[in-house]
Amino acid sequence: MKISLGPVTLLYPAPVLVVGTYDKDDKPNMMTAAWGGICCSDPPCVAVSLREATYSYGNIKEHKAFTVNIPSEDLIKQADYVGFTTGRSENKFDTLGLTPVQSQLVHAPIIKEFPFVLECRLIHITEIGRHTQFIGEILDAKVDETMTGENNNPDPLKIKPFYFDPGTRSYYSTGKRLGNAFSIGRSLKK
Amino acid sequence: MKISLGPVTLLYPAPVLVVGTYDKDDKPNMMTAAWGGICCSDPPCVAVSLREATYSYGNIKEHKAFTVNIPSEDLIKQADYVGFTTGRSENKFDTLGLTPVQSQLVHAPIIKEFPFVLECRLIHITEIGRHTQFIGEILDAKVDETMTGENNNPDPLKIKPFYFDPGTRSYYSTGKRLGNAFSIGRSLKK
Repeated sequence: MKISLGPVTLLYPAPVLVVGTYDKDDKPNMMTAAWGGICCSDPPCVAVSLREATYSYGNIKEHKAFTVNIPSEDLIKQADYVGFTTGRSENKFDTLGLTPVQSQLVHAPIIKEFPFVLECRLIHITEIGRHTQFIGEILDAKVDETMTGENNNPDPLKIKPFYFDPGTRSYYSTGKRLGNAFSIGRSLKK
Repeated sequence: MKISLGPVTLLYPAPVLVVGTYDKDDKPNMMTAAWGGICCSDPPCVAVSLREATYSYGNIKEHKAFTVNIPSEDLIKQADYVGFTTGRSENKFDTLGLTPVQSQLVHAPIIKEFPFVLECRLIHITEIGRHTQFIGEILDAKVDETMTGENNNPDPLKIKPFYFDPGTRSYYSTGKRLGNAFSIGRSLKK
């Protein structure tokens, strides 16, 4: 039997997205967002939801660009730190010893030490409520050259992304490969 | 060094969201969506992106309601099957032996055998391109009573959600608990 939890924002898994932006003086900033994900195949788009109070909110509106960086489990402390501090009063790149690299495609910084990044051009804004959803067209995805596997695809077991659970306020790791999508269920065909 | 992958829709992790709807004749349907996630804290909202060609697309527009069900790793074959078949020509609940339970809050079915569900009222539609994004207000979240842990929070290690990687077209399991969010990075404070 199922029990009611009330109208809560739980979903499994929730990602740990580190959004890279420049402020109006071109100081790089990053923030951690859990509300987001891919939202369209063509044009390829990703959505991230931010509160208006965040420093990154104004930065995205200013430059109409952002990056979405995926941290590896090895840098979990850095990604967590980014999530509870503000770029208004601190350069988080300096604090954490992380390196902002200017994207050649959009006016936003790539976090060099994180293994995967999407470079995005803002194409749509939806005001929902406490959060505003920014939809960015993905102009390129980049991965550390050491993190690919078969057919040059990024290998999640090398990238080691982790995810956030708002309920237990915990992070969980990527586990093992379970099987092939669009295939493992074929045996159920009648 | 990072290498370019082109404008691809990769992000880690991508969820496996099984969307429950009724068609115009109240036949229950379910489809698997990887493009989606929580998008606002207040009102609590979740976004799922669907192609217009899907049966569920018309169902959501018809009833302005849907559920988002999270399958456990134990039902990975069923969730995969749902992802490559259409409800137009088949009642997937019958094929798979899964049970649609009418939500008491919205006109959409809950998948009884899946451990976690969000019951959603459609509040916004964004036409992006190949995919249309449906934003639903979460009226309630429900979890199997056997799947909770400390403080009655749903326990990801019991729910065992898995995720999808569009690059390798594979599913990956939930791994181990890594640490406390908003805490594990505090040691980096200068």
